[in-house]
Amino acid sequence: MTLWRSLRALQVYGANTDVGKTIVSTILCRSIQRQNQRAAFLKPVSTGDLSEADDGHLRRFGAGTVTRCLYQFDEPVSPHLAVNEDINDDTLLRRISSTLSDWHSTGINLSLVETAGGVHSPGPNGNSQADLYRPLRLPIVLIADSRLGGISSSISAYESLVLRGYDVQSVLLFRDDYYQNHRYLRDYFERKNISLRPLPGPPGREESAARDEENMDRYYEGVARGDDIASLLEEMGEKHKERLERLDGMADRAHELVWYPFTQHQGMTAKDIGVIDSAYGDNFQVYSKSDAQNEQLRPAFDGSASWWTQGLGHGNPDLSLSAAYAAGRYGHVMFAGNVHEPALQLAERLLQTLDNPRLQKVFYTDNGSTGMEVAVKMGLRAASVRYGWDARQDSIQILGLKGSYHGDTMGVMDCSEPSTYNQKVEWYRGRGYWFDFPLVTMVNGVWKVQMGGLGDVLGSDLEFSSLQAVFDLDARVRSEAAQRYREFIHRSIQEQVQRGVKFGALILEPVLLGAGGMLFCDPLFQRCLVDVVRSQPELFHPTAQQSDGWSGLPVIFDEVFTGLHRLGRRTAASFLGVHPDITVNAKLLTGGLVPLCTTLASKEIFDVFSSPEKSDALLHGHSYTAHAVGCQVAVDTLQTMATMERGGFWEAYRRGWQEAGAVDQGQDQIVWSLWSPDLVTDLSRVESVEGIFALGTVLSISLRDAAGGGYTSTAAKGLQQKLSAANVHSRVLGNVLYLMASLTTQPASLRALEDLLRRSLA
Amino acid sequence: MTLWRSLRALQVYGANTDVGKTIVSTILCRSIQRQNQRAAFLKPVSTGDLSEADDGHLRRFGAGTVTRCLYQFDEPVSPHLAVNEDINDDTLLRRISSTLSDWHSTGINLSLVETAGGVHSPGPNGNSQADLYRPLRLPIVLIADSRLGGISSSISAYESLVLRGYDVQSVLLFRDDYYQNHRYLRDYFERKNISLRPLPGPPGREESAARDEENMDRYYEGVARGDDIASLLEEMGEKHKERLERLDGMADRAHELVWYPFTQHQGMTAKDIGVIDSAYGDNFQVYSKSDAQNEQLRPAFDGSASWWTQGLGHGNPDLSLSAAYAAGRYGHVMFAGNVHEPALQLAERLLQTLDNPRLQKVFYTDNGSTGMEVAVKMGLRAASVRYGWDARQDSIQILGLKGSYHGDTMGVMDCSEPSTYNQKVEWYRGRGYWFDFPLVTMVNGVWKVQMGGLGDVLGSDLEFSSLQAVFDLDARVRSEAAQRYREFIHRSIQEQVQRGVKFGALILEPVLLGAGGMLFCDPLFQRCLVDVVRSQPELFHPTAQQSDGWSGLPVIFDEVFTGLHRLGRRTAASFLGVHPDITVNAKLLTGGLVPLCTTLASKEIFDVFSSPEKSDALLHGHSYTAHAVGCQVAVDTLQTMATMERGGFWEAYRRGWQEAGAVDQGQDQIVWSLWSPDLVTDLSRVESVEGIFALGTVLSISLRDAAGGGYTSTAAKGLQQKLSAANVHSRVLGNVLYLMASLTTQPASLRALEDLLRRSLA
Repeated sequence: MTLWRSLRALQVYGANTDVGKTIVSTILCRSIQRQNQRAAFLKPVSTGDLSEADDGHLRRFGAGTVTRCLYQFDEPVSPHLAVNEDINDDTLLRRISSTLSDWHSTGINLSLVETAGGVHSPGPNGNSQADLYRPLRLPIVLIADSRLGGISSSISAYESLVLRGYDVQSVLLFRDDYYQNHRYLRDYFERKNISLRPLPGPPGREESAARDEENMDRYYEGVARGDDIASLLEEMGEKHKERLERLDGMADRAHELVWYPFTQHQGMTAKDIGVIDSAYGDNFQVYSKSDAQNEQLRPAFDGSASWWTQGLGHGNPDLSLSAAYAAGRYGHVMFAGNVHEPALQLAERLLQTLDNPRLQKVFYTDNGSTGMEVAVKMGLRAASVRYGWDARQDSIQILGLKGSYHGDTMGVMDCSEPSTYNQKVEWYRGRGYWFDFPLVTMVNGVWKVQMGGLGDVLGSDLEFSSLQAVFDLDARVRSEAAQRYREFIHRSIQEQVQRGVKFGALILEPVLLGAGGMLFCDPLFQRCLVDVVRSQPELFHPTAQQSDGWSGLPVIFDEVFTGLHRLGRRTAASFLGVHPDITVNAKLLTGGLVPLCTTLASKEIFDVFSSPEKSDALLHGHSYTAHAVGCQVAVDTLQTMATMERGGFWEAYRRGWQEAGAVDQGQDQIVWSLWSPDLVTDLSRVESVEGIFALGTVLSISLRDAAGGGYTSTAAKGLQQKLSAANVHSRVLGNVLYLMASLTTQPASLRALEDLLRRSLA
Repeated sequence: MTLWRSLRALQVYGANTDVGKTIVSTILCRSIQRQNQRAAFLKPVSTGDLSEADDGHLRRFGAGTVTRCLYQFDEPVSPHLAVNEDINDDTLLRRISSTLSDWHSTGINLSLVETAGGVHSPGPNGNSQADLYRPLRLPIVLIADSRLGGISSSISAYESLVLRGYDVQSVLLFRDDYYQNHRYLRDYFERKNISLRPLPGPPGREESAARDEENMDRYYEGVARGDDIASLLEEMGEKHKERLERLDGMADRAHELVWYPFTQHQGMTAKDIGVIDSAYGDNFQVYSKSDAQNEQLRPAFDGSASWWTQGLGHGNPDLSLSAAYAAGRYGHVMFAGNVHEPALQLAERLLQTLDNPRLQKVFYTDNGSTGMEVAVKMGLRAASVRYGWDARQDSIQILGLKGSYHGDTMGVMDCSEPSTYNQKVEWYRGRGYWFDFPLVTMVNGVWKVQMGGLGDVLGSDLEFSSLQAVFDLDARVRSEAAQRYREFIHRSIQEQVQRGVKFGALILEPVLLGAGGMLFCDPLFQRCLVDVVRSQPELFHPTAQQSDGWSGLPVIFDEVFTGLHRLGRRTAASFLGVHPDITVNAKLLTGGLVPLCTTLASKEIFDVFSSPEKSDALLHGHSYTAHAVGCQVAVDTLQTMATMERGGFWEAYRRGWQEAGAVDQGQDQIVWSLWSPDLVTDLSRVESVEGIFALGTVLSISLRDAAGGGYTSTAAKGLQQKLSAANVHSRVLGNVLYLMASLTTQPASLRALEDLLRRSLA
């Protein structure tokens, strides 16, 4: 939202206060005006005596530079102390953005947005300017410090900017031939490919204001006429041009060089590729070259939470610093036989977070797919050993649900039934039995459990007064429906086993089957499935006994997508009232920053791998197992989530759903979503909507499709296009369009999205 | 190397110059002396007038504090300008360390090591103090800046320290009631769990030196007597105790909670777990509580390059900043349908680096195992489509070498022959035919190609005048041995195909088979294997024609371990003179920081997945595909490697091997290692050594084992223990002990390691 073709908008940061930001700005503006280009200077927030204000200085010496100050306060202290009115950060950013936009439309070529003090000097609301202005991410002119100590403060200021994802374009400072900071810093920044220009220092102050002004004018004229500044301005122009050229070409280059995940490239053109210049909070900044006259970057809401990974916002400076800390303290250190603080802390914190007394051991891998490979290896071994099966002779199978998805490595592909996803994978051999299951959805204002093709055996569809009631499993396990579920499950397993099938593990994605199409399984069905497996172990082996440990089959929960507050709770298992024997977490685990996965298991399963034989061990491990960067970021993510939970960060949403719910169950048991119950109810009544649900951060809308839905359906495309036109980036799964918020998405953003959905579906 | 039980050694950094570091140090030292504990103050490098020197100030006002200055220069400028003698950074660190050690042994309780200027003020050799002192990684007392602009400079200084992996323990600053920086900063640091103490400012200077001294003395006495300082010192003591207690308990906790990769836990105790407090360059800092009287941290050389990942040193500040930049600019943004600069730049740079005209498309995954899964999916599909095979009916197989290893996900496990690694994996089904092959090794001073069990068909062992000669494939392809290799390969494939085996891909780890036991394959054999597959495609299908694209079988090179300078060249393929159709890179790709993998393929193979059907696409993708942090770090890693290569960074090693080699082949073709040819020759003559080789960063020593070697051999354990006692952390694979350097390992470290090896094997 801050990039134009004909206007170069830059932000001026100082390495410290009093390093001459305004003087340098004046030099730049004056010089470019000399080249018959037009300059403008914006001081968003100014403090101190008006007669000394920076925009006034620019007006006086800027040779016609347009100037503006958005907020002026008299006291010469940091804005967070001086401000005596309510300045909303978003409003401030919008005003800067619209000022620049106005300037662009009036033909300004260069505009400088000057900050106050140093990079971290607080803005009007007390947060660091480097954070405050980050959504704009203007290229930066850094004014370095030429005084004693200035090498250090300049480099630190630079680092603070870099770790927020800013691009520092040029560095300027006054030449001081005694301290020679400019020499040191020139070499330093040259290594970073950033050019530095030392400038002559301004003249000393004179008693007489007139003389002072005259001196300054002469100074400016001298510097502005110099080759150094002319060449710098030329270079800045070149960089701007190069940036736009690169952005222009990126989609083409990507189309040429990149083999995209999960993408059919035939028919795909460069136009189908989004060029993401940066991202912040919930938004991508997407480049669009369509209209050369307008802004070249537009914010787009990341409505898939970047494939379900985002939780604490893009470009989160705390996570950025966490990652940097771990990188600086360790890099990566090999984990076999060693331990380091981030890995240990993460193990401790995860066990505490998941609060499942069965889980005692933490195994690290890199992503959900590898973590599930490990879970499967654990589960199959435990069952094979207990039941005395020879896996080389017998094919040990998985028990699961249809539409499950556990990743793309071939081992875990085999855990799902044949589908479009694995149809053409040469080595795919589905190894399991997968249940059909009843689905939860709201239809026409009513929460329903739909039996689908299972109506004959499971009875007619169920209706509920609220989503809360659907999850009231303590009551529902005693219902007739539960009885029918259990009988059906028991019978089905028995049939398979009688045919000779040997099952090695039960694998479930609790509550929500994501990649399979955002299928919201009746939690009672999953609960009954676990209950049957555990209470009737003899189903799986004639000698099997019920046990307090794993019983019947090891129960593996794939919470890669559903865990860690994605559905509004720390675990999805808690919705079922079930403690799995093995749990896999990823995605949100690192707050949406880097790949990392954990597979947690019970001591009993761990012990199966313990023997005097090396070959009995779990011989699995990736080189970057428990990499410090991922672990540290995950520790800080879990800590942040815990703080948010304790602090009642989501209280308003919870209350909204509590009021809409009919069941009183005490605080912890509330079923809620960031999406409002009204929205869900209203949309469920829309003609083109087949069904809808919301849970935690997830909103899922099934559109009517005459052809029947499924992964290849195009029914949701129309809605997706409408959202896209309104700068909301969404993903569809067949006839299902889903939107996913972060844990930190602002209520205002959610309201805007809800309005958009209402309009788009009206 | 800087942690003792009874001595708390801290480093004092200033947010800027002139913030009162020495005054605060004096307060702390004086206060602790008041508590009948002993303080010491170390100024490693002092500049400026001796009468104003900081250690002098401490002596005058520190109430008996022991003081020392290591280097004193008169000019009051930054040390890098003042220094007029040669101060080696390592020497400086060693002197600090030994001073602290002396103080520890004389019963000092608190010692402060004071820096000069701000955190990045240059040390005597011009590099930032924050970098210079990083190997010590002392806990930090940060003196914040109470002046206007001080909020910013204090936070930036803090961030610069954090991104180098320092722990800031306390923050102190002078109270200024006008600017109130202490309030803002107290809240800021409270959120980081760091306590901040504001102190009353020192008295103004007086004309009379005696009065001045009296004032200061009164000032110090007042502050030192205050509760604030007493409680801070108590808190510092607590933190020191907690740190030691945590370190004491970490191995136990890890033993309790962590399920280690590739580890048989039976018989393992907490004592077997290395507690890694931090890492820098080539060294871990390992905690050892064995002897409470001595230093608690000892450096240990990371001799496995942390499972083959390290290339640019642990805790590399440039990579740390790269990671932070990408995290700050993007976090992670979903890659399907989008592109961002780091991912595109990496694709461009990789294609350029690998310089293989066949490769045109880049697919991203998270680690070598997932990247190989993708490669296998690509290869099998291409072959099945070309040869019209129905993979659901036919079992398509891999052609490879015995001892290959491609990762731990079950799909790629199936690409290796049955072995200890996969023996107990329930779903493992080896799908392939794997050749035995001749091995390269130096025995008793002579480079040999040993035919092993293949002597009957491949002829007798070969001898070479140099390692260079082994790799002279242009000559060797015309040899009789090559003819025998090709005949053997052709015959073996023909036999398999005649038995009905369908092959879908040839997979090789070029030159060196790592996980299989550091097996150095005769490059001529691998070259012949590729040549036979490509030149005689009719072997694999009766209608197959030779082609300029992939011919016979898609050739997949697994360069996860061997690529990107691990063996001294950008690609291992270049040793064979072969351009694979698919190449997989990981490990060194990110300079040893975070997981990331690339699978590069030809356009022809990419096109096989192109169709109007979504289901024909390569439906593979992990959530963090092409995560910005990994891609950015990889871009900067490749850039650094290219700069090193161009700059002749390894020239001395290359020359050493060139002199030892007998074949003149022009610069680019030199076969060389960081390990010296003399070492290899000398150790090859040692009785207990069966064979040895070195290539690039890898040194591999096979020890004689009466029982025959293999993964379960214990022959190398003795040598491993000797190295361990000398603080070298190494890994063994059966009877093979290998050491792996980084690309940046210093010659002095290598010499020390070589000496140690000579002594240990003598």
